[in-house]
Amino acid sequence: MLIFHNPVHHLHQGRHEMFRGRLVPCHEVPDRLDHVLAELQRRPLGVLQTPGEVSIAELERIHSRRYLDFLAGAWDEWVALDPANADIDALPSVWPTRSFRHDVLPDNFAARMGLFSFDAGTPLTAGTWTAARAGAACAIMAARELAAGIANGDGTRHAFALSRPPGHHAGADFFGGYCFLNNAALAVQTLLDRGLQRVAVLDVDYHHGNGTQSIFYERNDVLTVSLHGDPRTEYPFFLGHADERGAGAGLGYNLNFPLPRGTGFPAWNKALQSGLDAIRRFDAQALVVSLGVDTFEGDPISGFALRTVDYLQVGQAIAAANLPTAFVFEGGYAVAEVGVNVVNVLEGFGA
Amino acid sequence: MLIFHNPVHHLHQGRHEMFRGRLVPCHEVPDRLDHVLAELQRRPLGVLQTPGEVSIAELERIHSRRYLDFLAGAWDEWVALDPANADIDALPSVWPTRSFRHDVLPDNFAARMGLFSFDAGTPLTAGTWTAARAGAACAIMAARELAAGIANGDGTRHAFALSRPPGHHAGADFFGGYCFLNNAALAVQTLLDRGLQRVAVLDVDYHHGNGTQSIFYERNDVLTVSLHGDPRTEYPFFLGHADERGAGAGLGYNLNFPLPRGTGFPAWNKALQSGLDAIRRFDAQALVVSLGVDTFEGDPISGFALRTVDYLQVGQAIAAANLPTAFVFEGGYAVAEVGVNVVNVLEGFGA
Ligand SMILES: [Zn+2]
Ligand SMILES: [Zn+2]
Repeated sequence: MLIFHNPVHHLHQGRHEMFRGRLVPCHEVPDRLDHVLAELQRRPLGVLQTPGEVSIAELERIHSRRYLDFLAGAWDEWVALDPANADIDALPSVWPTRSFRHDVLPDNFAARMGLFSFDAGTPLTAGTWTAARAGAACAIMAARELAAGIANGDGTRHAFALSRPPGHHAGADFFGGYCFLNNAALAVQTLLDRGLQRVAVLDVDYHHGNGTQSIFYERNDVLTVSLHGDPRTEYPFFLGHADERGAGAGLGYNLNFPLPRGTGFPAWNKALQSGLDAIRRFDAQALVVSLGVDTFEGDPISGFALRTVDYLQVGQAIAAANLPTAFVFEGGYAVAEVGVNVVNVLEGFGA
Repeated sequence: MLIFHNPVHHLHQGRHEMFRGRLVPCHEVPDRLDHVLAELQRRPLGVLQTPGEVSIAELERIHSRRYLDFLAGAWDEWVALDPANADIDALPSVWPTRSFRHDVLPDNFAARMGLFSFDAGTPLTAGTWTAARAGAACAIMAARELAAGIANGDGTRHAFALSRPPGHHAGADFFGGYCFLNNAALAVQTLLDRGLQRVAVLDVDYHHGNGTQSIFYERNDVLTVSLHGDPRTEYPFFLGHADERGAGAGLGYNLNFPLPRGTGFPAWNKALQSGLDAIRRFDAQALVVSLGVDTFEGDPISGFALRTVDYLQVGQAIAAANLPTAFVFEGGYAVAEVGVNVVNVLEGFGA
């Protein structure tokens, strides 16, 4: 298995996120990725590589130009407001709700930050843009290698983009849920741009992949499948219901499995099988897996009850789809166990 | 002039608001109103009264039921999450952006808080609902007296609803900008419900009356006129542009005068005259004035340059419209000067 890891991920290191009216320490920390790397030292599953640069044009295949411009310049603008901001993470505090305009780009930085976000839990820091862009490069490179392997029949059938910040909550023009660039969506688009016609996304993170769903909601070349905590009670709340099946040409190409807090592996696995059945019916030519392991019973911010050993079966189940597959690292906040759980999926997959 | 003041306004006293990634002390403090009351002792302009109760059905003339239910139960739900929350203001930290659903009411409190808000600068406290509801009663009672005076020709032509929290940023189903219930909109609706056909709103607060505009945007029985800092640079940012003229039946019945930071009285007064001209052409039968004095040169969060003496002329200009008029207290954060500036408007008006 080819593994592209982000060598500058630690440049994105938020200090605080808003939770229940307070600023609390961030859950999405560099240690998460380092634990996966350490586990890959113990159980080597492939070659570790770092990605090259990708162009803004490649990011624009998924993200809007005005959003990318905002991200690229955000930290400098933030510090220009007040030099003391250099020691504080940027967080949004005002946003456009129903009936407010989204078409006018405000000059004010705080306003643009609110226009391009959906939570105050995703600090934007000095190194966020650099880290997120290198992370997107991991996903794009993984997809390129996969596309080349499919085209050449040379055996490259699996790849892993090991990066943070994660991506599945980021939309075409919004950040949130610790995510800025949608790595999984960029991998999907890269596969399509390199000749595939139908790509499926399987999002097994505890949280609904609201960014990914939004990006592909009106398209029929991408089937998006997400298993997650019921949005009535679970973050990110406002998308992920079972009746969201896509729209326009995309109607029928989005599939959500909202599951109640406390769901254990048997019920979760049943939903996974249904999702994989749909991917089979879609006749996907490749699969992108948004691999979050915050479904783990010990996760501090989530509510499912998968055990470490279950992740081996998760990998086996995904392997049974028998598709060229790119894994993209997403959530998982039981930091010490993240490495073992992620590598269990990959080992079960038989990479 | 009849003056309804809110005797329980101090029950709403936020501790912190989010600003540039930090929690900072609130600008919207009880002292603001107390300074107006004190100035009304020095310069008595009418009888001070406290309002009676108003029903939820009256609030529902402007606000949605599910929003009112949220506000009524919010503090208890907040403390039920964690008893320690009793010492912390409730603030939203996740909200539905573009492409997210607004139709499903989440069970989760944080999600509902985000669904019903547009900023994290408007703390919801133990006494917010009680204070806001009594404030709405001030506005409704003032409008009732005005309506009765119009119907009877008994001389009651002017009233003042002196309350906080303010109202003009609150929409049918959202809070923000220190506002929870739209007092001005409730006054307008009361006038219409008591027999008037055409009521105008004149919003002279520094900040665009985004809640008021949203509420009446598709109606032609209410002309909304707002003078304010340009939303490209000034809070609340996402509404208030000059090209927002209303929609549907309401097309032509919304008028915005966005003005640059630094605007002084001569240019501001010119916009005021244009607004009053429009109100005359509309043939309004009564006027509701959203009276914010954060246009003051000393206001700590705003950017116009009106001087204390100018407010006498503001009152004179409004009096020249020669309409039954209800003033509703909105913003103004140069706390020590708020009383003098507000009472100058009323004195200039000749109440
Ligand atoms: Zn997650
Ligand atoms: Zn204001």
